[in-house]
Amino acid sequence: MNTQNHELKGRKIAILATDGFEQSELTEPKQNLENAGAKVDVLSIHEGKIKGWNKTDWGSSVKVDHLVNEAKPSDYDALVLPGGVMNPDHLRMNKPAISFVREFAQSGKPIAAICHGPQTLIEAGVVKGHTMTSYPSIHTDLMNAGANWVDRAVVTDANFITSRTPDDIPAFSRAITQTILQLSPPLAQAS
Amino acid sequence: MNTQNHELKGRKIAILATDGFEQSELTEPKQNLENAGAKVDVLSIHEGKIKGWNKTDWGSSVKVDHLVNEAKPSDYDALVLPGGVMNPDHLRMNKPAISFVREFAQSGKPIAAICHGPQTLIEAGVVKGHTMTSYPSIHTDLMNAGANWVDRAVVTDANFITSRTPDDIPAFSRAITQTILQLSPPLAQAS
Repeated sequence: MNTQNHELKGRKIAILATDGFEQSELTEPKQNLENAGAKVDVLSIHEGKIKGWNKTDWGSSVKVDHLVNEAKPSDYDALVLPGGVMNPDHLRMNKPAISFVREFAQSGKPIAAICHGPQTLIEAGVVKGHTMTSYPSIHTDLMNAGANWVDRAVVTDANFITSRTPDDIPAFSRAITQTILQLSPPLAQAS
Repeated sequence: MNTQNHELKGRKIAILATDGFEQSELTEPKQNLENAGAKVDVLSIHEGKIKGWNKTDWGSSVKVDHLVNEAKPSDYDALVLPGGVMNPDHLRMNKPAISFVREFAQSGKPIAAICHGPQTLIEAGVVKGHTMTSYPSIHTDLMNAGANWVDRAVVTDANFITSRTPDDIPAFSRAITQTILQLSPPLAQAS
């Protein structure tokens, strides 16, 4: 779409997910960010394809571009963590995935999580003191981890962008773009 | 099976679950406790049947005996919380379910949770200071909630019994029976 004027041209964005990701929470932000001119890589904990979850049952698969243990946070301008009940439940048990998330969060570059995606942020130990939202089922876990949980479509706090459900995807995608433009230097300067 | 000598004869046990319960974690403890002579009721947050999850896909359904908002903790000698990634994720957003769990935990009667089942205990705010186990993916959430998390097949601490995965079900079922016999008076005395 031309409405976003390719404002993310030259930016590289990672989406980290595995089987059970909520389909729309990966494919729609990916499309929105690509429409804005970014190159988007899907990172995962196994090669091949990862299987989406479409609301109440298994959905479509998405091709994995790189294994997360072979990817470098320094290669990306932003990181997106989709939800789905099963996806972050797997990711949070994978040490390279959690190390990648922790290093990215600490780099100060935009890191965006939707629905159950913030479970991975809890596991990485990076939520303390931040204002965040999430799917309501995990709000107690975020508060116990030291986050200030609020019920809003999208919350941006420092380099963290969080949203609640698939309904919030348009606001989530816009906030990712805005935060990249505000916080992350163009790749040409960073490399 | 005759091996357990109907040692739970006259005892009434509630299993609280909803769609997405890990099938074996409901059906096998239920069968084991019924084999030991107990009457077991399945409580849920909707009427009819609840749909099981069998490792990697939807499995068989189980009949709901009572809605949890119409059930009384005082009617039961023990409460069992199966896992499955989706089941406690739904339950923890349901106020009557969480009130039932909290009241049961505080009653001092045996409360047993396996796999992701302890998420419901976190939501009820009853894990602080207790030694517990769980599916490994939620161990950080249990620790953040104040539990002392350990990696063992079954852990009994006061009236709390916890296990990790379907492999632990035999030990889990035995610990439930033992804890009922130790802690909970026969229903004839309680009523």
